Order: sequence, then C-alpha cells, then structure tokens
Amino acid sequence: MSDITELMKTPTGWLSDEGEESEIVLSSRVRLARNLDDNTFTHIASSEMLESIRSEVSAAVMDNRLIDDPLMMEMDGMSGADRLLLAERRLISHEMVMNFKNRALITGMDESLGVMVNEEDHLRMQSMESGLNLRKAFKRVSGFDDELDKRLDFAFSDRLGYLTACTTNVGTGLRVSAMLHLPGLVHNQDIRQVIDGLRQVRLTVRGSYGEGSEVSGNIFQISNSITLGLSEEDTVANMESHIRKVLEFEKKARESLLREARTLLEDKVWRSYGLLKTARLVTSKEAMSLVSAIRLGVGLKIINDVKLSILNEILIMIQPMHLQHHYEREMKAEERDRARADYIRSRLEGR
Amino acid sequence: MSDITELMKTPTGWLSDEGEESEIVLSSRVRLARNLDDNTFTHIASSEMLESIRSEVSAAVMDNRLIDDPLMMEMDGMSGADRLLLAERRLISHEMVMNFKNRALITGMDESLGVMVNEEDHLRMQSMESGLNLRKAFKRVSGFDDELDKRLDFAFSDRLGYLTACTTNVGTGLRVSAMLHLPGLVHNQDIRQVIDGLRQVRLTVRGSYGEGSEVSGNIFQISNSITLGLSEEDTVANMESHIRKVLEFEKKARESLLREARTLLEDKVWRSYGLLKTARLVTSKEAMSLVSAIRLGVGLKIINDVKLSILNEILIMIQPMHLQHHYEREMKAEERDRARADYIRSRLEGR
Repeated sequence: MSDITELMKTPTGWLSDEGEESEIVLSSRVRLARNLDDNTFTHIASSEMLESIRSEVSAAVMDNRLIDDPLMMEMDGMSGADRLLLAERRLISHEMVMNFKNRALITGMDESLGVMVNEEDHLRMQSMESGLNLRKAFKRVSGFDDELDKRLDFAFSDRLGYLTACTTNVGTGLRVSAMLHLPGLVHNQDIRQVIDGLRQVRLTVRGSYGEGSEVSGNIFQISNSITLGLSEEDTVANMESHIRKVLEFEKKARESLLREARTLLEDKVWRSYGLLKTARLVTSKEAMSLVSAIRLGVGLKIINDVKLSILNEILIMIQPMHLQHHYEREMKAEERDRARADYIRSRLEGR
Repeated sequence: MSDITELMKTPTGWLSDEGEESEIVLSSRVRLARNLDDNTFTHIASSEMLESIRSEVSAAVMDNRLIDDPLMMEMDGMSGADRLLLAERRLISHEMVMNFKNRALITGMDESLGVMVNEEDHLRMQSMESGLNLRKAFKRVSGFDDELDKRLDFAFSDRLGYLTACTTNVGTGLRVSAMLHLPGLVHNQDIRQVIDGLRQVRLTVRGSYGEGSEVSGNIFQISNSITLGLSEEDTVANMESHIRKVLEFEKKARESLLREARTLLEDKVWRSYGLLKTARLVTSKEAMSLVSAIRLGVGLKIINDVKLSILNEILIMIQPMHLQHHYEREMKAEERDRARADYIRSRLEGR
C-alpha cells in the first residue's frame, strides 16, 4: 500500500469537532518558515543543493521521532494526482504540486504535524488542530522547531530574526491562521465590515482553500501578515483575540437571524439536508453551500442528527482528487458530480 | 359532527391508485346534466321553484338508496369555507360556491357518486373513479340516471335529446373527463402538439382544477365538448381511445427521458422527494411541481417507497380550505405554507 493510501485510511485529526468553538471555527493552523544557514534559498538553489537539503532535513526529522508515525514522501516519486490529493488535504501547497523536483513532505499519520521541505523556504513546518486551538498548535510546532534547531543550523539574524525567502516572513517566520464558518455575517451583510476591520489590524482574510478562490460555503481563512517586530506569543495572542471578536459578531448575527426569521432559516437548513440526503448529482459549489446551511443548523440546534466532524470531512472528501481516490478511478466533472452526491449521501446515512 | 367533517374522515375512493393506468391517469369522471320538465332553468327560476326542485330531487335521490350512505347538504346552511372545501374536493363547482341559495349536494360517503342540485342544470350527476375507468364511471352514473328517470320527469326532446340550460350540453348532457399527469410530454415539449391534436377532434384540454387555472404539476384535464349527434356509448369509447393515444405518447416520452437523461431525472426525482421530506415552508405551486416529479419517479420505478394514493391525497389536502380544516384553524398564506410543509412531511413519513 502506498503512503498516500495509508494516509487516506486514517482519520484526519483536525477534522474532528472536539476543538473549542468548533461550531464556527473549523481548524487552527500555525506554521513556521525556516531555512538552513549557508545554503541559498530554494528558488535559486541548484538541484544538488536542494537534494542535500532534503536529505539533511529528512534525516533530522525522521531520526528524532519528533513526529508520531512519520511518513516521508518525496514529491518527485509521486504522480501529479497524488500531489493534488495532498494539496486538497492541505498538507502541501499548490505551489508544491507544480514545482515538485527535490521537494518532500514529512507528516505524521494523523496529519496534525508536518513539514514541507524545499517549498518557498527550506522548511515549512505546520501544526493543525480542530476548532479554535491556536495555542496548542503553536506549542506543538514550536516544540518541533526547538528540537530541529538542535540538529539543524537555521539562518538567523540577531537584528531581523529568522531569514526567509520572502520578506513577508522574515522575523518570526510565523503564520497563524484559522478557518471560520461565518454564514450569519454573510447573511446580515456585516461580513464586509468585519473583513475591513481585520485588514485594518493587518490580518489577511481569504475565502477557504487558498488564495484567489471565491468564498464558497461561507468559509473564511484569517491569518496574520506581520512577522516582524512582534513576538511569537504576541502574534498568537493577538490573532486569538481578533478571532474571538469575530466569533462574537457571528454569534450575534446567528441569534438575530434565529429571532427574526426562524421558520425561513429552519426551512433553508432542512431543505439543504433533504437535498444532500437525496440528490444524485451535486457540484462542488452547491455542496459547499448546502453543507454551510446544515452546519449553521447544527450550530443553532435546528438539526441534531448530523455531526460537525462528518460535515468537516465532507468538505475535504468532495474535492476532485479525493473523490477519485475514494472511488479508485479517474472521473470527468459530471461523473464526479455523481460520485460526490453518492459519497455525501452515504456519509449522511452514517455509512 | 357535521356532514363535512364526516366526509373528510373517510377516504375518497377516486384518490386510490387501484384504477387502470393510475401512474398517468389520476381519475376518470362522468357527469350527466338533467332538468325537470315543466320547470324553468335554474338561472331564471324563482326561489320558490328552486326550493321545490330541491325538495323533489332530494326526495327521489334519498328515498331510493341509489347512493350508498347518502349525505344531503344544503348549500345555504353552510359556511362559505365549507362550500370551498367541497369545491376543492371536486364535489361541487366553483359556480356553486358563489351561487348557493336553494342549491344542494347529495353525495355518497365515498364520494364516487353524487348529484348537484340547482347548479347550471337542475341535476348534475357525477361519478368518479380512480385511474382510467370511464366505462365503469359511465355505467354507474347511467344506472343512477335510469333509476331517477323512473321517479322524475326529465326535460327531453325526441329531436334534440336532453334539454339543458346551456346549448353546449344539449343532447346527451354527457361530459366525460379524465385527469392526466403528463410530465414526459411537458418535458419533451410535445405537449403543445398533443393538445392541438385533441382540440382538433373537439376535445377540451385544461390545466387541473377547473377553468382558467394555470397548468400546475403537469396535470391536465381532458374532456369532450360535443354532446349532440353522438351516442353516450360512442362518446365514452371515443374519449377512451383518444386518452389511450395520449398515454402512449406519454409513455414513449418517459422512456426516452429515462434512456437519454437517467441520472438527471433520478436527481430531479430524488431531490423533489428530499425537499418535500424536509421543507418547513412550501407554497402550493412548488408542492404541485415537486409532487409531479415524485409521481413521475414512482411511475418509472426510480423511487419505490411512496404510494401513488398518498401523492393523490396530498394534491387534494394541500389546498387552502383542506389545510385549514385539517388543522382546525384559519390561516394566512404564510401559515398555510408552513402547515402544507408539515402535512406533506407527515404523510410522506407514513403518519
């Protein structure tokens, strides 16, 4: 069995609904960018140098058992489809799907801790947790970083901090982000104002699943953009406090929606559930939108027989490569719409 | 208990799915128009005369036990809401809801045989059967007519036949009609051509539930418009043969739909079922359209856990007066949308 198939078989830790505020916050992620001293940055490094970096980092990570059940996956030895699968799973970047030579991913089987090797920086470590759990994710990746620091020589300047390929990461090399489900704010149209507010405090807001994609399923990713002049602890605390404010707004929006339009809301939630339980063809876009409505219904106790963890899992599994891997065949868009509908029905039936 | 409440408690015979071709033909109806000799027609008769006609007809009908468990309902003693309820049940005409003085309905408890007194004609007898069953309906109303003929003196001319208030009924006074569900022909757009063909052979085609209403739920009523110069038997046989041709077209349309777009069709059918099983607000128009899709799905064996009789019953019960009677309170349109959704859910759950 390939590593990927093994990975697909085990539940992804951060999809659980056990984290704090998991009705609104899908997941928390913390990543650290590091580079090896005395090596050129990835984008200008020779193949030989990249290969030597990959060897050095892999040896350090695999040897020390810093990650439970670590899997080492060299991107060059993998099909494009498998790399896309890892990207859909948020284990590697889309950049790494395209530029894969001498790149690698080392991840734990539960996918909560991992490191991309030779992406934009030599090391991109990431820790993911379910719900609002930035501190835990930070502690985890930070401990990992400490252990690696003993074994690798990271490029560091006393004046600037950690040196990175892109100036936006210089300093702490820390990116803290959370995925939020905000249907209440989208519905009452306050979302624009909330996003503007977050941008004013230098946070970045995106639709889910990476840059440039449209906001589907009312899922937003909030991340910090400043890595210089702020300690790691302050960055995490700062982000958490802003997210908690957004949660407050979202909760108020949901309450007023429930107060002012309960029947319409119940109708929308139940219809969405009815459609996903019966449809035979579902596009990705529609699925996101229906899952969003059901998720809101679960949060507001309108609907009780669906677990958030199932909805979270559906969001990952309905992506093209995941569907094709699950059903073990290549599919065109229309076939995927059918497979997507089948998959969702089976999961909502508890199969 | 009022007669109406009693009527509402018993199942309506023609809503069953036991008739021939009941996947496409909801019901067959035959009515005979008769007038008493030596009396002026209803629209110019005095109150006294109408009252005497009502007495005479009632005595003949009730006395002879021509109808099982006959109920005699005088329209004047009834609320407008109750008259509307009878109209929704297709036992009286909308005309009679408005012009109710000295009018009456005598109907059997199973609603398969009845007579309106002092509608456009002194007697409008009707027999209804489920599915395509024109001969049985005709036999029933014809036997009823024969019995009444022994006890009442009908206006009859050797040259013209039975005399009626409107010239369109002179002759046999016979109107034969059937309610057809034609989603296949609507979908492949042949419906226009089929309707034109029926009109060329002097048949009348209407959307369901009476004149002027838009075609909702893809349900069409086909009836004869000629009552002069054609025997009763020929009228019935003629109508049946035309209906069988329409059935053939509809079946072919359904087969080709299934062959060419099975998945899309399955998706539509199952989604409609999912929506009706979960929605909290449903307008009458949407309900008709969703029931239509499910009905098609049952006919094509796409969906097996819904009985046609339940769908037929839903079509009657989701009407405004029926909903209000069922839930025992007056409701505004939005409340009815909610009650309609509740009622449909409960019926589809088998409660």
